[in-house]
Amino acid sequence: MERKLLNSVDCCVDEALEGLVSSSGCLSLLRGHRVVVRADLEGIRGRVGLVSGGGSGHEPAHAGYIGGGMLSAAVAGGVFASPPPASVLAAILSLHDAGVSGVLVVVKNYTGDRLNFGLAVEQARNRGVAVDMVIVADDCAFDRPSKAGRRGLCGTVFVHKLAGALAAEGRTLGEIVRLVKDALKGIGTLGVSLSPCSVPGCLHSFDLPPGEMELGLGIHGEPGIKRSKVATADKVVNNIIDHMTNPASQSHLALKSGDSVVLCVNNLGALSGLEMAVVTRAAVSCLEDRGVMVARVMSGSFMTSLEMAGVSLSLMKSNQEILRLFDAPTQAPAWPNQISVRVSGRSYTLEPPAFGTEDVSQSEGPLSGVMANTLEMVCSSLLLRQDELNSLDRASGDGDCGNTHAEAARAIQEWLQSHVVPGCPGLLMSTLAVLVQERMGGSSGALYSLFLTAAAVPLRDSSQPAAWATAMHAGTEAIRRYGGADPGDRTMLDALCPAVEELKRLVTAPPGAHLAILQAAVEKSELGAESTRDLIARAGRASYIAAERVTLPDPGAVAIAAILRAVFQALTE
Amino acid sequence: MERKLLNSVDCCVDEALEGLVSSSGCLSLLRGHRVVVRADLEGIRGRVGLVSGGGSGHEPAHAGYIGGGMLSAAVAGGVFASPPPASVLAAILSLHDAGVSGVLVVVKNYTGDRLNFGLAVEQARNRGVAVDMVIVADDCAFDRPSKAGRRGLCGTVFVHKLAGALAAEGRTLGEIVRLVKDALKGIGTLGVSLSPCSVPGCLHSFDLPPGEMELGLGIHGEPGIKRSKVATADKVVNNIIDHMTNPASQSHLALKSGDSVVLCVNNLGALSGLEMAVVTRAAVSCLEDRGVMVARVMSGSFMTSLEMAGVSLSLMKSNQEILRLFDAPTQAPAWPNQISVRVSGRSYTLEPPAFGTEDVSQSEGPLSGVMANTLEMVCSSLLLRQDELNSLDRASGDGDCGNTHAEAARAIQEWLQSHVVPGCPGLLMSTLAVLVQERMGGSSGALYSLFLTAAAVPLRDSSQPAAWATAMHAGTEAIRRYGGADPGDRTMLDALCPAVEELKRLVTAPPGAHLAILQAAVEKSELGAESTRDLIARAGRASYIAAERVTLPDPGAVAIAAILRAVFQALTE
Repeated sequence: MERKLLNSVDCCVDEALEGLVSSSGCLSLLRGHRVVVRADLEGIRGRVGLVSGGGSGHEPAHAGYIGGGMLSAAVAGGVFASPPPASVLAAILSLHDAGVSGVLVVVKNYTGDRLNFGLAVEQARNRGVAVDMVIVADDCAFDRPSKAGRRGLCGTVFVHKLAGALAAEGRTLGEIVRLVKDALKGIGTLGVSLSPCSVPGCLHSFDLPPGEMELGLGIHGEPGIKRSKVATADKVVNNIIDHMTNPASQSHLALKSGDSVVLCVNNLGALSGLEMAVVTRAAVSCLEDRGVMVARVMSGSFMTSLEMAGVSLSLMKSNQEILRLFDAPTQAPAWPNQISVRVSGRSYTLEPPAFGTEDVSQSEGPLSGVMANTLEMVCSSLLLRQDELNSLDRASGDGDCGNTHAEAARAIQEWLQSHVVPGCPGLLMSTLAVLVQERMGGSSGALYSLFLTAAAVPLRDSSQPAAWATAMHAGTEAIRRYGGADPGDRTMLDALCPAVEELKRLVTAPPGAHLAILQAAVEKSELGAESTRDLIARAGRASYIAAERVTLPDPGAVAIAAILRAVFQALTE
Repeated sequence: MERKLLNSVDCCVDEALEGLVSSSGCLSLLRGHRVVVRADLEGIRGRVGLVSGGGSGHEPAHAGYIGGGMLSAAVAGGVFASPPPASVLAAILSLHDAGVSGVLVVVKNYTGDRLNFGLAVEQARNRGVAVDMVIVADDCAFDRPSKAGRRGLCGTVFVHKLAGALAAEGRTLGEIVRLVKDALKGIGTLGVSLSPCSVPGCLHSFDLPPGEMELGLGIHGEPGIKRSKVATADKVVNNIIDHMTNPASQSHLALKSGDSVVLCVNNLGALSGLEMAVVTRAAVSCLEDRGVMVARVMSGSFMTSLEMAGVSLSLMKSNQEILRLFDAPTQAPAWPNQISVRVSGRSYTLEPPAFGTEDVSQSEGPLSGVMANTLEMVCSSLLLRQDELNSLDRASGDGDCGNTHAEAARAIQEWLQSHVVPGCPGLLMSTLAVLVQERMGGSSGALYSLFLTAAAVPLRDSSQPAAWATAMHAGTEAIRRYGGADPGDRTMLDALCPAVEELKRLVTAPPGAHLAILQAAVEKSELGAESTRDLIARAGRASYIAAERVTLPDPGAVAIAAILRAVFQALTE
């Protein structure tokens, strides 16, 4: 017995109906019955009222389809069990009492539902209600269906929509029955399941070994037509549509190139949204490959089988009139928001905006040489310390901190060989940001790239020491803002922030003091890196390691100090 | 490794995006990126554009929320992986190129997303785009969240809606950021899972034994706060709301009696619709019990974790302004249809229409005596043949055909003891129809009740033999219509139809011939019942049994012949 999130087997259907009604605002329950009706029944006075229903376990069917433009009432049975005729009669009479001009009952083709709904229809007729019944039998599974006929499946939802739209525009009961019966000839459904489902309190309705699937299963787990290994989505969809449209089958849907259809991709319960979208793509493209125009697509959970992992495809042959009714507005909560746009034939790919790296050639300047030297020094320093950084990282992370920095260093070295360093430091920073983002990878790559991107701004128009100080500050702030760490959290910020604090003095210091300030910044950075030995990691990956296990300095902070030391060395050589 | 309905692990994300875009009509894809944008980008010229995104596997998030009144673009990463900054930048710049007044980027609080989206934001800003970022951190799981802060969960969907509505009404980027940050203080989320999920191509993200559940799990399967046996839905929901609102937790949502909230009940993937509705009921009633006004409810799949069987509750404290934005129209395909109605405080139960059985007292007539005698005879005949009918049924069904008929016979006998038989045969038929429906049960009960209900009509105004003939015909036709069987299918119709055919002669025959016609009808009926020995069952439960195994007559047909024989005996005695 599967464990479900319910209160009890006995009350689950009633509670589910209460859950729907209490959360919708436009639905009511008939006391003593499992009947949901529109709260605004006065809205259908003088028009045809629509009743549907059947066993529970197919949510959102059918009560989710109640609302202006769709059903007026739905009658629920127990899980996978037909409702009692007395409740169906109560539903019909409550619409009759509200002054409808007639009642259409839509029933899925199962013997129990036919009999119980049929009985209520006859009883209502005896009471003077103008009432008629339409039986939906859209199953395309069996080449030779039994006497009981094709089963009623998700195509029923199309009927709710068409009949609802016709009723809303004031058509008579006779007209609606005629038009719906006509549309029914063009509706077919076939599904595939990867897992069984289980009625609350019961074992699985059938066995299906993992990795196998069954084609043509009913929505109560009734047997299908073929069991096989799970194939690719494209292949499965192709098989479904082949079988659905195979003229050798008595229950096929006659579909030919040039036809236009509405496609419903129905999650039988537990298929992931990712799989549903992949299946939807496969279905649209399989139909288009056959020359069928896909006029509308609805993809989601419309007629489920509890938690069955599977999907069914329903097709409804369409023309302008069918589409007009399909597109008509409805307030039913389970109907999808906004689907009234034509699908086939639209090109849905846009060119992305152009945003290549800025052209840095022809932009050499007086600072190009010194910046190239400095970069060379930073790169060789990081490469020299690759093993040391890796070993520090092994204590707190996955041991690749040296490798990541070496990766960036080599990328910059390569770039230096084939490019001229631009004279504008802002332009250099932006260029390095893209290089590091593309080549360094991981969080470190993103953090350095963030630093460089933010630091580029103040260095666009100035290369004065004050601008460098502002740039260092801006870069550090970007790391804090997006990385979510602060000094003291045992990250690169513990080396970066003290240096940035010191560098602020560049803004007001006389030119002669600049190098001394840089030296002080480097020393503070090294002290900061060293101080991380005593810090508990609160951000970054080291935060997942127990504090007592980390007694070495943080490799990210050590790398920052090494970079600053290399810059200082390059400038003083 | 779980078997999924996909084409390949490598292409599943791209195909899922194509599936969404190809089925929607109002979405486009940026070539070379996993970026979905509104097809009608010109519609947001001069307004703020909204970008969101993150790892895939959370469908319909985020691309399903693109459309007028919600997002303008969404960037998808691999399954549970943050998207590359270059794609985020492409999304931002495509909105910028379309002439938006600014771009707001909405990000769930995960380090990877913060860094990658943050980097793109900084790069866009460097290119002159007015851009800002809001980080959603709505997780209420941890009493003391780590430095990384609370995780971003389903509350993000609320942010998409509010920000989208604000953008649609032309608010500035600054205003939107301020209002959204304010609303974020009142948004909290907590979930529970009954099963793990698995990234395509991988093992389950974690282990959770059947029958256990984990509270506070992240949407990528990150650890939660407590594991326990699955409890009742009411208890689980109560625990969730207790924990979410517990002031001792640093990540709690401050909620007090009198507050108004929007509730989102989010299916994490594979919970059945039945369970979802039961959980929704529990959540609404748990909040109302605490004096909280539930202003709106959305219940469905909004931010999933692949096929995880679980549910999260998101609450957003609301006021008139929040509700106005929540209710504003949107064309986003994944937003639910029509939810803008207040929930708490509404009475949602209606009295059913009154339709007790008609009053048959005081209606005795000349025919009462003979009809009472006939009924007595029919009942004793059926009781006499109980074992014979059971034994016939054992060959083709579950062996209870005699019991079912005896049940009906005893119900009629009881009724006869305490009621006067009405003189109007139509009224008697209607009364018996209800009795049989309530007491006989099963398909047989429904079929007899259908017969009696339909037969009642011609006998309302006449008790002439011709009316009886018409009644028998109408009743038989009802059985054929709703039961879906025909003569020759080895059912009760094989005894009924030949008799009805014979009885038609009553319409024109002189009074003296009536009894002879009835006798002939009874004999034809008996012959018909006997002929079912040679018939292959094509309807009813015997149709599931191989033909060669059934060599006895159909018990349903035998019962019909017995009833007719009893009627004839009563009338000739």
